[in-house]
Amino acid sequence: MFTDLALGALGHPRDLPTALELAARHGFGGVDPDVGHLRGLRSRTQVQELADDLTSRGLRWGIGGLPVSLTAAPAVFAEQLAALPQVAEILAAAGVGAVGTWVKPMDDALTYRRNWRLHVGRLALVAGVLDDAGIRLGLEYVGPKTFWSTERFPFVHTLAELRELIADAGAGNVGVILDTYHWYTAGETPADLRALTASDIISVDLNDARDDRERDEQQDQDRRLPGTTGVIDLSGFVDVLVELGYDGPVKAEPFLSTLAERPVDDVLAEVSDLLDRALAPAQELSRS
Amino acid sequence: MFTDLALGALGHPRDLPTALELAARHGFGGVDPDVGHLRGLRSRTQVQELADDLTSRGLRWGIGGLPVSLTAAPAVFAEQLAALPQVAEILAAAGVGAVGTWVKPMDDALTYRRNWRLHVGRLALVAGVLDDAGIRLGLEYVGPKTFWSTERFPFVHTLAELRELIADAGAGNVGVILDTYHWYTAGETPADLRALTASDIISVDLNDARDDRERDEQQDQDRRLPGTTGVIDLSGFVDVLVELGYDGPVKAEPFLSTLAERPVDDVLAEVSDLLDRALAPAQELSRS
Amino acid sequence: MFTDLALGALGHPRDLPTALELAARHGFGGVDPDVGHLRGLRSRTQVQELADDLTSRGLRWGIGGLPVSLTAAPAVFAEQLAALPQVAEILAAAGVGAVGTWVKPMDDALTYRRNWRLHVGRLALVAGVLDDAGIRLGLEYVGPKTFWSTERFPFVHTLAELRELIADAGAGNVGVILDTYHWYTAGETPADLRALTASDIISVDLNDARDDRERDEQQDQDRRLPGTTGVIDLSGFVDVLVELGYDGPVKAEPFLSTLAERPVDDVLAEVSDLLDRALAPAQELSRS
Amino acid sequence: MFTDLALGALGHPRDLPTALELAARHGFGGVDPDVGHLRGLRSRTQVQELADDLTSRGLRWGIGGLPVSLTAAPAVFAEQLAALPQVAEILAAAGVGAVGTWVKPMDDALTYRRNWRLHVGRLALVAGVLDDAGIRLGLEYVGPKTFWSTERFPFVHTLAELRELIADAGAGNVGVILDTYHWYTAGETPADLRALTASDIISVDLNDARDDRERDEQQDQDRRLPGTTGVIDLSGFVDVLVELGYDGPVKAEPFLSTLAERPVDDVLAEVSDLLDRALAPAQELSRS
Repeated sequence: MFTDLALGALGHPRDLPTALELAARHGFGGVDPDVGHLRGLRSRTQVQELADDLTSRGLRWGIGGLPVSLTAAPAVFAEQLAALPQVAEILAAAGVGAVGTWVKPMDDALTYRRNWRLHVGRLALVAGVLDDAGIRLGLEYVGPKTFWSTERFPFVHTLAELRELIADAGAGNVGVILDTYHWYTAGETPADLRALTASDIISVDLNDARDDRERDEQQDQDRRLPGTTGVIDLSGFVDVLVELGYDGPVKAEPFLSTLAERPVDDVLAEVSDLLDRALAPAQELSRS
Repeated sequence: MFTDLALGALGHPRDLPTALELAARHGFGGVDPDVGHLRGLRSRTQVQELADDLTSRGLRWGIGGLPVSLTAAPAVFAEQLAALPQVAEILAAAGVGAVGTWVKPMDDALTYRRNWRLHVGRLALVAGVLDDAGIRLGLEYVGPKTFWSTERFPFVHTLAELRELIADAGAGNVGVILDTYHWYTAGETPADLRALTASDIISVDLNDARDDRERDEQQDQDRRLPGTTGVIDLSGFVDVLVELGYDGPVKAEPFLSTLAERPVDDVLAEVSDLLDRALAPAQELSRS
Repeated sequence: MFTDLALGALGHPRDLPTALELAARHGFGGVDPDVGHLRGLRSRTQVQELADDLTSRGLRWGIGGLPVSLTAAPAVFAEQLAALPQVAEILAAAGVGAVGTWVKPMDDALTYRRNWRLHVGRLALVAGVLDDAGIRLGLEYVGPKTFWSTERFPFVHTLAELRELIADAGAGNVGVILDTYHWYTAGETPADLRALTASDIISVDLNDARDDRERDEQQDQDRRLPGTTGVIDLSGFVDVLVELGYDGPVKAEPFLSTLAERPVDDVLAEVSDLLDRALAPAQELSRS
Repeated sequence: MFTDLALGALGHPRDLPTALELAARHGFGGVDPDVGHLRGLRSRTQVQELADDLTSRGLRWGIGGLPVSLTAAPAVFAEQLAALPQVAEILAAAGVGAVGTWVKPMDDALTYRRNWRLHVGRLALVAGVLDDAGIRLGLEYVGPKTFWSTERFPFVHTLAELRELIADAGAGNVGVILDTYHWYTAGETPADLRALTASDIISVDLNDARDDRERDEQQDQDRRLPGTTGVIDLSGFVDVLVELGYDGPVKAEPFLSTLAERPVDDVLAEVSDLLDRALAPAQELSRS
């Protein structure tokens, strides 16, 4: 495992070169690639330069955002999908190994089964195109009941369902993005995580929850930095990752509005420290 | 359509012979058969006598309760299923044409898809056995959000999903039980009903909702008698039944605790009157 | 119903303007649009001229070929799908109402269920894009056992399965292409057709089979002109179309190599006459 | 792995006590339990005596036949299923750990998907009941094309499909019965077997095929004793079992009519020897 920096999720969006600099300065192990930035580069040389910058700073890529909306109108999805092979090639050239997206946990028009078919069909295509470039796809389920219960048809909002969805899509290069916040709000335990293998996990988010709200009252966009409230069993979660031998990126994605008001270096110093502490069991293990 | 008496749902459980007498006295068109009573009769002669009593009073059978739990443990379900052929034969001998049950709209252990498979597999068996005796099966979906959102995995809670479930079970003798209360709490409209044909509908319940609660706050076991609060668009609902040419039983199932405290004749007089008023458009049509 | 000319299937490919002329000369009621020709036209004016030519000759469009391969590699499918909106717009401008394709009835790598998911996912996208332009999609099942049994995993090869596939794709603008040859080789009867409504049928092919082969020995690419061998119950088939009120295109698709050796006018005169005779029951009905 | 005796499959049906005696005499490691015999015993004492006889002879139980038909009419299935808990208890008391059945690889009435739902629904119930007694269920796919292609709708006839079926049934106590004959006729290779783990395999059959027939012409009921014709890659098959660490029963099931004409001791001596030779690689491994 390595700590990974996603600046936007911390309220301080910066361009990718700046992100590399900040990540290195604050001791992160990796940086999330900005797919829009990479596809905007004018030449393969520039892509290579960025990849070299990453390596020379001792950093690794985290996970990029999938530039395809799984629930867009058919013609829009078709256009995004048709553009994906070229993007995937650029990502591969830059050394990026995975992109990810989340699954919307409800719909007002599509029943669970109709929505399932839509997702399975589109995931198979997206994964097939990414696989041509050797890129993996991570999917994140979204756990808060205040979110999945707000439209007529709840959809995938637990790890068990996401695993069924990935199995049904039938693509070998699709895995899960784990987030302690969704794991907690979905009512899951370390046992649920043990059903996974390390290769099933594409990326990991560590967050905490508000301590003045019940589990079913937590809001998706109002989280806390990992380990700061103690609501979520962070060490129980990390212990399983260590058991499984997970070695990918681990980041914070708190959607905490007050972070944007603080100096970026303050925020990154705190986040880097919190992630390091959370991953201490893993570091000890690898040292021993 | 004919008004149908279900005494238990009105807080006044009585044995079946008494129910026939009360239904006739208060001008109901039919009575729900008590499956337990019928299977407890000692001879076919007694079954025939009861059927004759029904006919001589100008009544018809409503819908009986399915004596099988769709979600029981496998061995329990097996036992109930193995007993069903004999019960179905008695029901057929008594002239009963349909039994029904409801679908539990959530589960704490089974994902939507696992629960779907359980229901499809068991429904196919139950329907197959009932079909041997010429009996139809009605399924009721349960709409209140305060119910389907209370466990980890919401399940079938709308007409659209129930229709998918019935189609997937692949049995020609399975249809829906419509209830205005579930239709309202599921956020459905007359357009949703128009997707049905008369033969898709096995039985109908008319109820109203509390007028001091929002739709998503309504409780499954706290309803009002049809037309008494005006929360639910009763005439919009009945109009579609008339359009479709539905000719089966229509009853009230208010689960309203205060009814049990009133004299049974008072309650039945009111319910009979409310149902007659609700069905007035249908009566006019059949007169013209 | 109207007789429809598909020149390629008769061994005499011609460009679309020539096809219109030949169809008019030989009394066909319609012509299959050549999608490649239409998308190759340089302007909307040219498209309109062709549509006007069709109308002025008293002809109608049959069904075009879907310019998307349902089983192509993901990146190829993505490209074809992304190009479809523009093609669909041209077709709609030309007045074409439907395109069609066939379902490959077996696969060596994909199990029935994996192939099902691939088809359902892709069909939903193709149908969604076509629907934006108001175009319908017809699907043809392929019945000969000498075809569907030749790879490890048989797939959709009957009307019952095709109807399940269309239902699962969940798109309102998808229907079936019926072909007497597949209907016969699949062991189907008029009863199977009666399960359809007129709007479920997008296009119809009339063919006959060799009379020196058993049903399970018939080859997909070696058929006979409709009514020439009497192996297939042509009138039983057409009678159901009349019952259902089908009013779309009806053509011959014999894949009979000797036709290419005969003068085109000879062939078209014979085919037009055979189709007219086959549809006589329908013409009588519309006259009465 | 241990060699297992199934007398009926060798043309010499005997009662279970005799089977134990013959198995011991000819050096088999186990005997298939006769479920009918066991459920016919009058007391638990007799069950225990039989189990003791098995143990005292140094034998183990192979796999019994599931006394439930997965494709029976609903009422028949219901009756067999309701009787299963008691049978399962007797089997458990006798020390039997697994029963098995085969999947009929085609149907004339049910499409693949309808048949799938029937199997999934019934398997879940059967497995659930067996699980209450700690008994596992083995399923065998049937590979010959001369069998699966003979009705309108081919069904599960490969290992890949059987694994999907077991996954969909969602029961932890269901696994596969492997048979070299089906593995060969289904066109499978050692790579297909490597997708399994030892615990996925409930029982194994070793057979050979006729050397005067092509693979697609082999008949299900006309096989050869293992290793006698060399048509099937027996050692490639056994090597994977050894790799996986499979430790269950291995038997011959040749359906070879001439065996019935030879003295039973002759036949058993030959079969025991052929199985021992086939399993030699495994024995060497366990010795080292």
